[in-house]
Order: sequence, then structure tokens, then C-alpha cells
Amino acid sequence: MSVLVVGSVALDSVETPFGKADDVLGGSATFFSASASHLTPVQLVGVVGSDYPVDKLQPLRERGVDLAGLERVEGESFRWRGRYRHDLNSAETLETRLGVFSGFRPKIPAQFRRAPFVFLANIDPRLQLEVLRQVERPKLVACDTMNFWIESRREELLELLNHVDLITLNDAEARQLTEQSNIVKAARWILARGPRHVIIKKGEHGAFMFTEQSVFFAPAYPLEDVFDPTGAGDAFAGGFIGYLARTGDLGEASLRRAVVYGSAMGSFAVERFSIGRLLELTPVDIERRVREFHRLVTFDAELPA
Amino acid sequence: MSVLVVGSVALDSVETPFGKADDVLGGSATFFSASASHLTPVQLVGVVGSDYPVDKLQPLRERGVDLAGLERVEGESFRWRGRYRHDLNSAETLETRLGVFSGFRPKIPAQFRRAPFVFLANIDPRLQLEVLRQVERPKLVACDTMNFWIESRREELLELLNHVDLITLNDAEARQLTEQSNIVKAARWILARGPRHVIIKKGEHGAFMFTEQSVFFAPAYPLEDVFDPTGAGDAFAGGFIGYLARTGDLGEASLRRAVVYGSAMGSFAVERFSIGRLLELTPVDIERRVREFHRLVTFDAELPA
Repeated sequence: MSVLVVGSVALDSVETPFGKADDVLGGSATFFSASASHLTPVQLVGVVGSDYPVDKLQPLRERGVDLAGLERVEGESFRWRGRYRHDLNSAETLETRLGVFSGFRPKIPAQFRRAPFVFLANIDPRLQLEVLRQVERPKLVACDTMNFWIESRREELLELLNHVDLITLNDAEARQLTEQSNIVKAARWILARGPRHVIIKKGEHGAFMFTEQSVFFAPAYPLEDVFDPTGAGDAFAGGFIGYLARTGDLGEASLRRAVVYGSAMGSFAVERFSIGRLLELTPVDIERRVREFHRLVTFDAELPA
Repeated sequence: MSVLVVGSVALDSVETPFGKADDVLGGSATFFSASASHLTPVQLVGVVGSDYPVDKLQPLRERGVDLAGLERVEGESFRWRGRYRHDLNSAETLETRLGVFSGFRPKIPAQFRRAPFVFLANIDPRLQLEVLRQVERPKLVACDTMNFWIESRREELLELLNHVDLITLNDAEARQLTEQSNIVKAARWILARGPRHVIIKKGEHGAFMFTEQSVFFAPAYPLEDVFDPTGAGDAFAGGFIGYLARTGDLGEASLRRAVVYGSAMGSFAVERFSIGRLLELTPVDIERRVREFHRLVTFDAELPA
């Protein structure tokens, strides 16, 4: 089953303690697609300027990402410039130039409107709501957001919560949205406002999935070298939703596996700048890492007799 | 099999956002014993001053903690005063008064010297080495340490690493000791210097156990109310070593379960001031929480057919 993603397609310039990359493929929809397309067909809706190196998206197209919803308009593409210090935990934004993204009004092509899975990547909640008005009874709608929208579009974001099945956000965002310092309480607060599942991402400290009845936790994969954390969250979402779309199974066991696929894809994303590592992955790489996650956390709760 | 613990027995005064406690039972050996004694007999070696309310240790004695190694000397007991701010992640030390602890020279009673399991809680590495000269071929020796000793007793600490099977330390301490910012690399650095197992505790973010061949991770239990984090690390060590001593099994599967018992005991410790919660636990409480840990992380790595 296919996944529709609506989000940013950007050019990133990133500095980490290990190197520097200029004007490389970035944006939430790009990372999401590069990740999810390993698992299921993806339909992308976004906008780029006339300066965007669209040919560089060809590898995504070859892997089954339908770019029919990628508008190209006159002007500059969305550019983000950021830096990570030695601990790699948080990006310092040096510059954001929205360019044509500032006028983005997502138009979902007719052939995308019945996508059974929809991921509303981190864009203005007003636009996320507009997307939902254009799609037809998806099986699962998930959204992401960020501190900027929590502050500036709180009301629209709360309205959005009524219309999504699942939200992914990081721990700081969850605390900001809910004004609860404890993330279990933060998750309960969100669950009471619409979504049936809340995924709270803690970066290098793993991710929780909360539902009314259950809590699941997957650690981040203990990598020896984290090269560039940019896009890990969107790669996580791509692995998560991609897995669900591939199986079509929304049961608890499947959702747990989906979190692990998300964690696996997030762990690959950080091994290289941009979508470099995601592009070269094979199914065997992904299965192997999922099994490593299993070994990482598995224990037998029974006492020896 | 019994566990010998050598460490501090103190009086803590703690302020958290949820309340305040004065001169309550504290110290690494106290938390360790209150935790481990749920799983195995404990032999405690430490020192208190003439002002210590030794009768308050009676519940530990009743649970099988042998206090024959608790010296009482003229003078003031070790006192620690600290405060936690809203995020509860790190204690701010307001006052430390070593009192009689500053002259502590551990003397292991004859009947404790053959303890098969030894935990060298966080004290001067010189004293930790002295303890090892007094014990006879233990099955497992584990130690803890802290930033103060890493800085002031680096050479002795490195010497100690040659003589222990396992070290527990938190992520900041691991980075400080090894000068590696990545904790996987930090663990490898330590493994190359003696211990066969390294446990890196990340507080609310869980704990890793590294060996030459494997990595295991257990999350911290997602509590809605963390009341007072003091002693969580020692309660973890108590659950971990206590479990190993109970089973006598040092195989990988047992070590993994031990990490979970440690995490469970750490999660109880933070629910109340001092050892309040640890004292009232029943075996059923502990088994239930271990099973909750299992549910928290369990997923099936196989794809549906």
C-alpha cells in the first residue's frame, strides 16, 4: 500500500565535527521518502524553486517515489544551514531561507488522494489540515510538528490532533506542547486529544510509542560513529509508516515492529550526510539491523527453574 | 550466594520539586543493600559516626543485611545535602561533610572475606584496591566510581580496572574517564583495560551493558512520577549484583536479566525519598515490574509470512 507524504524538499548545508556539506538534498519529505521507499511505494507532495537540482532526485524516483506532486515554481528553493557541535544532540540553525516554500499550498494530485497511509511531515498545521481535506478516508494519518508551530499555531495544531491517528514529536516538543515535564504524562495529555498513538522521539536515547493500553520502547542503535543527525526523525517516520504500509497491519505487534523499522532507518540516516546512506541500503542491510535491535533488547523474563 | 558491599553509609538531606527530607538514610552501601537484599544475603562494610541513628538500619538487618562490618567511630557521620531542579536529571550538591568517612579504611571481617560477589561502591579507588587485597577469590567483583575519583585518582582507578570483572558508571563519567564522546567507543576503551563487562548508566535514558561480543540495553521504566533520583544508581547495582548472586549464573542470558532487575530496582528507588520504597517492596512487586520491562521492549523481529 502506498504512502503519501507532504513536507519540505530542501537544500541543506551542514557542518558537523566530521565534515561539511553544502546544498545537499534535505527536507522532511526527502528524508521520509528515501527511508519509506525501501518498504513501500511513496507519493511525494512538495515544492522546490527553479534552482533545485531535480535530477538528483532521480534515485528516489527509481526506487518508487512518485514525484508527480512535486511542484516547481519560479524562485529560490528552501535552504537550511545548520551546525552540530561535538555532542551531536541538537542542531544549531545558522540560517533558514524559506524561498518558494513560504508560499507552499499543497495540492494533492487526483491519483494520490486515495493513498491509504498519509504522513503530514513538519509543515504549518494549517497546511496539514488542508491536506486532510483533500484526501479520501486514509487507513492511517500521522503527523509530525516542531517547536515553531507549537508556539505560533497552537490552536490549529490542537485541531489537527483531532484528525490524526498518530503523532510523532521529540521529547522537548512533547513537553512544550503539553506543558508536562514528565513524558508519560505528556503522552497521556496528547492521547486525550485525539491520536490513538503517540511516538515520542528522544534522538540518541530512543523512542517511546504510547497508546491508551500500552507503552513500547525502542533504543537508538548504539553507533560508534554518528556522522550527521539531520533527517533522522523523518527517516524514522519513513521506516515506521513504510513498514505499516507494507504490511497493512495496524495491530500492536505490527506497530511495535514498525517502531523498530523506524529506529533502524533513523540509525542509517545518521551514518552519512543527506540521504547518502539511505540511498545505498539493501533489504539485507535493513533486516540485519532489525535483528540487531532484537538482540540489543531481548531478555528472558522467566527465572531459571 | 552472598554479596559483600563496601561503600558509604550517610545521612542525606534532599530537596526535590515534590518535597524535602532531612537527615534520611543515604549512602551508596545503604541503597545497594536495601536493593540487593531483596534477592540475596548482603554483607555491608562501612563507617558511621556516633550520631548515626543505627536503629533505623534495623529493617535492613531484618531483611538479611549483615551489619557486622559497619564500624561506628567517634565523630560526625557523612552528610550530603543536595537539590534537584525540575528536570530531575542532575543533583546539585549543596553541601558535603565527610565526617568520619574521611578516615575510612575498610576492614573486611573474617566471615565476609569469602563472599562470592563483591561490590566496591563509589569510594576512593585506593580503598577499593585495599578491599580486594582482603577478599579471597570472589566469583565476581564489580565497582562503581564518580567524576571526583576519575579526576583525582586516575592512576589508581586504571589500576583498579585491572582487578574488576565489571564496572558501572554513568555516561558522563564514561566520557570523562575515556575522553571518548561516543559511549560505544568509551565502552570499548574500558573493556580493553580489564573489565569483561561495562555497564553505562544513562539515568532516565536507561542502561547499556557492553561485553567484547555483545551489547544489551534496558530502558529506564517510564514512571509518571519520579520523586527523588538519589540512590537510583546504587539501587540499580544492588538489583544487578543481587540477581547474579541469587542465581550464581554469569552467562549472557543471566547478565541480561540482571540488568533488568537492576533497572527495576532503580525505578523503585526513585519513587520515594531515601530507601523508603525499597524497604516496602514485595517479591511480587519486583517480578511484576520485571515483566513490565519485558512488555515494554518486546517485539517479534520476524516479518509476518
